[in-house]
This record gives sequence, C-alpha cells and structure tokens, in this order.
Amino acid sequence: MERGIKNVSDSLTECMRLIKHEDINGGTRLFGGRLMQWMDEAAGICAMRHSGGMITTAAVDNLQFKKGAYIGDVIAITAKITYVGRTSMEVRTDVYVEECETGKRHVINHAYFTEVCVDKNGTPVPVKYTVEPKTEIEKAEWEGAQKRIEMRKKRRTEGY
Amino acid sequence: MERGIKNVSDSLTECMRLIKHEDINGGTRLFGGRLMQWMDEAAGICAMRHSGGMITTAAVDNLQFKKGAYIGDVIAITAKITYVGRTSMEVRTDVYVEECETGKRHVINHAYFTEVCVDKNGTPVPVKYTVEPKTEIEKAEWEGAQKRIEMRKKRRTEGY
Amino acid sequence: MERGIKNVSDSLTECMRLIKHEDINGGTRLFGGRLMQWMDEAAGICAMRHSGGMITTAAVDNLQFKKGAYIGDVIAITAKITYVGRTSMEVRTDVYVEECETGKRHVINHAYFTEVCVDKNGTPVPVKYTVEPKTEIEKAEWEGAQKRIEMRKKRRTEGY
Amino acid sequence: MERGIKNVSDSLTECMRLIKHEDINGGTRLFGGRLMQWMDEAAGICAMRHSGGMITTAAVDNLQFKKGAYIGDVIAITAKITYVGRTSMEVRTDVYVEECETGKRHVINHAYFTEVCVDKNGTPVPVKYTVEPKTEIEKAEWEGAQKRIEMRKKRRTEGY
Amino acid sequence: MERGIKNVSDSLTECMRLIKHEDINGGTRLFGGRLMQWMDEAAGICAMRHSGGMITTAAVDNLQFKKGAYIGDVIAITAKITYVGRTSMEVRTDVYVEECETGKRHVINHAYFTEVCVDKNGTPVPVKYTVEPKTEIEKAEWEGAQKRIEMRKKRRTEGY
Amino acid sequence: MERGIKNVSDSLTECMRLIKHEDINGGTRLFGGRLMQWMDEAAGICAMRHSGGMITTAAVDNLQFKKGAYIGDVIAITAKITYVGRTSMEVRTDVYVEECETGKRHVINHAYFTEVCVDKNGTPVPVKYTVEPKTEIEKAEWEGAQKRIEMRKKRRTEGY
Repeated sequence: MERGIKNVSDSLTECMRLIKHEDINGGTRLFGGRLMQWMDEAAGICAMRHSGGMITTAAVDNLQFKKGAYIGDVIAITAKITYVGRTSMEVRTDVYVEECETGKRHVINHAYFTEVCVDKNGTPVPVKYTVEPKTEIEKAEWEGAQKRIEMRKKRRTEGY
Repeated sequence: MERGIKNVSDSLTECMRLIKHEDINGGTRLFGGRLMQWMDEAAGICAMRHSGGMITTAAVDNLQFKKGAYIGDVIAITAKITYVGRTSMEVRTDVYVEECETGKRHVINHAYFTEVCVDKNGTPVPVKYTVEPKTEIEKAEWEGAQKRIEMRKKRRTEGY
Repeated sequence: MERGIKNVSDSLTECMRLIKHEDINGGTRLFGGRLMQWMDEAAGICAMRHSGGMITTAAVDNLQFKKGAYIGDVIAITAKITYVGRTSMEVRTDVYVEECETGKRHVINHAYFTEVCVDKNGTPVPVKYTVEPKTEIEKAEWEGAQKRIEMRKKRRTEGY
Repeated sequence: MERGIKNVSDSLTECMRLIKHEDINGGTRLFGGRLMQWMDEAAGICAMRHSGGMITTAAVDNLQFKKGAYIGDVIAITAKITYVGRTSMEVRTDVYVEECETGKRHVINHAYFTEVCVDKNGTPVPVKYTVEPKTEIEKAEWEGAQKRIEMRKKRRTEGY
Repeated sequence: MERGIKNVSDSLTECMRLIKHEDINGGTRLFGGRLMQWMDEAAGICAMRHSGGMITTAAVDNLQFKKGAYIGDVIAITAKITYVGRTSMEVRTDVYVEECETGKRHVINHAYFTEVCVDKNGTPVPVKYTVEPKTEIEKAEWEGAQKRIEMRKKRRTEGY
Repeated sequence: MERGIKNVSDSLTECMRLIKHEDINGGTRLFGGRLMQWMDEAAGICAMRHSGGMITTAAVDNLQFKKGAYIGDVIAITAKITYVGRTSMEVRTDVYVEECETGKRHVINHAYFTEVCVDKNGTPVPVKYTVEPKTEIEKAEWEGAQKRIEMRKKRRTEGY
C-alpha cells in the first residue's frame, strides 16, 4: 500500500474547557467519566483530521488519573498521533489544568486511544496517510507504540 | 491490617440503559465517550458498595470496544470487584447489548477500573473489606489482577 | 388470542445510579423531574424486555415521593411487570436509596406506568406474551391492577 | 390559620419549548421521561409563584399521554393551582402541541402534581395563601380535587 | 409581494425556567452561555409562530447582561416580533428574574435576534406575514429596527 | 493605574468540538443557541487566561451566523483579546468548520464579547494586564474596538 505522509503537527488537536457544575460529582471534583468523554472526543477529532475520514474508537489503554481537577478550573486537552497501522491509529491524549494567574500547566491525566478508520458500513478501511516521526519525542512515542501493541497481543493470548 | 471480608456478589452492580439520541454521535452508533462515562459510573458505584465509603477513579486499563451498539438498543452494564489492594480495588466492567426478542446478551465492551478509597480531603485510606474469591471465574480474575499489576509496574519503569 | 407466557423475573430490570450535580435542583436534593425521567426509562426497558418489541408510555399513576435523596447517594431503580392487557402492560417502578456502609435499601418513590406495544407507525399492537403471577406478591399486584384499571375508568367517566 | 388569598391567574405559568434531538428516544417521538421532567419543572414554578417560598414535589397523579409529539414541534406547558391544602397545593399541568401555521393547540398530556411547601430543612410548612376559585372551570377543578384526595386516601387504605 | 398581517401579540412567547445546578458555572451565578441558548430558543419559537414555517438564527445584536441570576431563581424569557423584512424578522428577547414573594420582575438581559425564514434546503424564503405595529412601544421598536439595520450596514461597510 | 502587559498570543484560546446529535435542532443543522454557549465558554476562558482572575460576560455584539454547520462536522472555536479597558476586556470569537480531507477552515460565525473582571462578590475590579497590539490585525482590531465602544454609547443614548 502506497500512501501519503502527514506530520504529527498537522492533526495536533487542542480543546480548552471550563469545569462547570454539570461536570462534577458530589463535592467539587471533576467526574472521571466526564473527562473520559472529553478525551474520547479529542482523540476522535485528531484521528479524523489525520485520516480525513470517519473513525471509531476501538480501545483505550493506560488511562491514568494523576491529579484531580476542580470546579472553575480551566482544562486543556491535547491529542496527537503516535503511531499509524494499516487501518488503525494510536492517539495520545494529555489533560492539563492551566493556572490562569501564571499560565503554568499541570498534567492531570493521559491515555492512549486506538482509533480505526471505517467506511459507511462500519467496516475497517486503510488509513490513507502515515506519519513520519521527526522530533525525539515523536520517535520515542512511535517505539513505545510497538511495545504497547506487543503487550496488548500478550494479554489477549494469555487472557488477563 | 485486620479487615472484614465480603463476597463479590455483595457489590455486583447492574445498570440497564436505553440508547437515546443524546448518546450517539453522527450516524446511529453509540458514542464511545458516553459509554465510558456510564462504565465509570457503574465501576464507581460497585466500589462504593464494596468499601462503604468515598472513592475516586485512579486508572482505566484494557478498555476494548468489541462491537457497536445502536440507537434504541437496550444495554446492560455490570461491574464487579476482581481484586482488593491496600487502598485500591480493581473493578471489571462488562457491557452487553440485550436482544429484547430473545433475551440474549452480546458483549460489546469491557475494561478494568482501578478505584481508590479516599477521605474527605481526597487522601487515600485503607479499604475496610477484602473479598474471598470463591468461584473459578473469581479466582481467575484475582490471578489475572496480579499480572495486570505487574504489567502496569513494568510500563511505568520502562516508560511506554 | 393465543399467546406465550413469561415470568415476571424474566424482565425484572434494575438500574443503579449515582446522584450527581446535574441531577439536583438548588440545594442538594434530587430533582423530582429527573427521577421521573429515570423511572420512565426503567419502566420502558422492562416493557421492551417483556414484550420483545417497541413500546410507548401511555400513563403514570400514583407516583409518590416518600423521602428525598441527596447528592452522592447511590440509587436503585427497579421495574417489574404487574399486569398484561391486550395491547398494554402495567409496570411497577420502585426507587431506593442504598446505604453503602450497610447495604440497606430505603424506599423513596414508587409508581405504576402503563406501557403500550406499538408498531412502526405508533399504532397499538397486541402484547405477544402474558405473565403468570406466581408468588404472593405477584398475585397481589395482579389483583391490585384490576382495581387500578377500574379506578381509572371511574375517573374518566366522572371527569375528575 | 388566617391566610391571604391569591387568584389562580396570579401564578398561571406557561413554558414554551421546542422539541430537539436530545428530547427524543429512538425514532422521532418525544421521550415521555423528558416531558415529565418539563411538567415537574412547570408545576414547581407555579407552586413557588403561588406560595412565595420553597416547595418539593410529593406526588404525581393521573398523568396521561394522549398523543405523541415529534422533533421540531413547538410545545406549550401550562400549570395552574387547582387546590390549596394546609401545607400542600395541587397543580394541574397541561401540555399542548401548537401548530405554527394555524396557531391551534392540541392537548397531548395532562397530570395533577401535589407540591408541598418546605422550609430550609425540608420540613413541611403552611402555605401562606389560598385561592378563591372564580370561574366555572376553577370551581370544577376545586371540587375534582376533593374527589382525587379521597381516592388517594382510599388507595392508601386498601393498598393498591 | 402581497402578504397577510398578524399582531405582535399573536406570537408573543413566554418561557419560564428554574435555574438549576446544570445551569450555573462555578459559584452560584447563571452561566451566560446557557441563558443565550434559552434566549435563542425563545426567539426561534416566536419567529416560527409568526411565520408559520421553518426559521434559522442569522444574527444576534446588543445582548446585554444587566444583572446576574442565581441558582433557585425563577426566570421569565419573553420574545416578540419587532420588525418584519422580506425574508427575515427581528425578535426582541427580554429576560427577567421574578421574585416569588412579591411577583415583581427585574430585567436581567435583553437582545435583538434576526431570524430568517428558510425552506427545506436552508434557502431563505419570504415571510408570509408582516405585523402592523399598534401600541406606542410597538411603533418605537419598529423605528428602532430601522436604525439597527442601518447601523449593521455601516459596520459591514466600514468593517469594524 | 500602572499595570502589566501581555501579548494577545498569551491567551489565544482554541476549542475543537465535534457536532453530535445533542447539538442539533430538528434536521441536521447545528443549533444556534448551542454554538452561542460554546462561544461564550471560549471567550470566558480567554478572558480568564489574560486577566488571571474571575470574569463575567457583560455583553455580546454583532454575532453573525454566516454559514450553517452540520452533524459530524469538526468545529474550531478561537477566542482572542482585542481590547482592554479599565475593568473590561473585549474578546473576538471566530468559529470555523474544518474540512478533514483538506484541512481547510471556513468561517461560520464570529462575535465580540465584553468580559468584566469581578471579585468574589461580583463587583468589577481592574484588569491587571493590558495588551500591546503588535501585528496589523491586532492594531486594526484595537481601533475597531474604539468604534464599537462609541456605537454602543450612541445606542444607549438614543435608545435603539
């Protein structure tokens, strides 16, 4: 399959959000399920922008809540392509709280999403573009993706 | 730490849902982010019922969308304790579409959630109860949990 | 009309929910309208599972808020068939707060929903299955349903 | 208890709504649970305007879906006081679809809500105002309310 | 174009709402974006009732938040036709907080919406009815509309 | 008042969104009120990032829907400071549909929001930072803001 090349930066996606009452559980802390919904939307938009077509989320891996976020906080959710397979893409999503006084960002969550290109019937189709990892970070993510793929296979085989 | 024992069945949680327009993206397919929100709520309720106190989601692992679900479908989300650590519990969440004509259930998704007991300030506190795995399935999940914990450690050390 | 028989337990439906900020009015108390929406969804799912087809809510009767529920509470909504007519089913919905420390459930609300089987055009069609009340409670509900039907007729005739 | 008098028209409440995608189930028909939520809000506002204080919904009675409403329809929800007891008010809620071409309204639903005046702790307190039914319709509703109260008592005694 | 005449009062629209937790940001104050959504819905309903057909919002002008509104407040949103052009209508929307103890209303917001009649393909079509301003206020609004139209043209020409 | 200086780029805010079923009215077109809510959130975040404190929306001006957006579309909402007064900031919000196949963006909406710095009691307080317009576009917006302020004064004086 001969296919085009795009940069990671071409589909780099940022969504800023304000945490409102409807986003928290009891107390004042951001509801984990709400954040997962926002991350899934950001990962999906990133994959649509890279592949230029319809996608569906196939898997989520290694989602870690490192710190809480609270009502009134400004949140930045970023999503970028880390790996491209035949019909699927891996997207890394990072979530930050941004301190408005200083502009500093603190990581509160990250995860890897596997997004699959589909046609109108939901059947997987090839991704039209791959990426060429350029920066050190992009190369490290690409290599990490190989390990994550292997780990997923191992888990499926050994059934845990 | 001397602590009480509960059965897995004591906190077994089931949430049935109907897929409505607000739950789908474009097309007629259930939005992945919405399902993740429902799974997080079910896992949280299960952990609250087991531990008897406040919890927060710390991590999600191996979330796999196996099949799609569509508008008008009846969905069953189940959550059960698979492992209890010092301050955390592992909860397995399974999602099924139930065919109303036949009553048959088809798996569409599952995942492992790590839920942590916290006090009012959000500080982790010990889980008051452990579980004694009784059935073959409960024992297999408990053993699988050890492997998943090891895998998470390995990933953290090797940074992928 | 010769039709099949199902048990009440075949379509017994349980939905557990966590009360979140979006579910309360001012103060910290569960918003009555939100609970009615959840009860209607549970009753509808129960009727779909019993009849195996499409349904629509025709009436709600004797809905009583016995106690309040508050943010952070775990709620259980159950729905079960109490009576089957030609094209309609009566479904009883009960709502409980579950104390997580003790596992005890307190009734906070119940109601009777009349659900009608419909085809694609919204025209009522016969329910394919009836139920055979087995337990004492099931028999009492079936008899109560006769009284409720009579009462509804009386109200319609006398116009109050 | 000496108390003030208000007219039914003083607290007559109207809420117009447009049926959007988020308000329908599968298909194009208004979701019954959503409509119940809107009716509860209208009944609550009416009771707050009459009593001038905090209220909570205690019961819903004789809620009948007479016709469906569909996406894009303009809906009018009206609420008016039909009876005032010591700590509670009965509110009648009617729902109409309004044909925009002709301005005609068709009834699709109505119900009686029992709303109770409460203080900050949720304890019932006397309603400060009663109403003096003036029109024939207002008088008929007031009389009907007596029958509905009796019927509710009878049901409670006989347990159906 | 010969067309019918309607009164401003024929399409006068009122929507009462209760401010709930899902409507506020951090703190207890009504979220501006939520109010804008409610105003747009009211303006759209008013334009549908006047024109008898489908409409779309083309512009919003001079939206001013004069005072805040808070959780638990009863809100009245009114919308009325102020001007009719060939394919568009201008709708004035006013928002009030109503004090339940006294029945007094305080303006908190108003704005002018431009609503355009469209056919199924979204193409603008003539408004079938005009209005004849009768009261002093209606005449003043009609004249004000001319000035607002001129101002909009001037801004477009001068590009600010 | 001696105050600090920030760049327009320091608080430049981007929110990408996917249009879902809950965001559309009847048909498949994005609901205007929903978009206004998103724009208000973006403008508010931008003002919080510039000023480093709490803000409230005071006015919206010249909001124009230039083209529709449809279900499944990827939307980019950007917000940037155009002017800083004593206690208020003007924020320009632009909304684009992004074609995923080509990466091209088409303007569908823009508006000017006036955001006011407030303390905990909602009282206006000085904005701690001004901006120094650097690019030609930034300078043109700053000048345009003077004209918009004058126009708003004229409208208030002449009452239209």
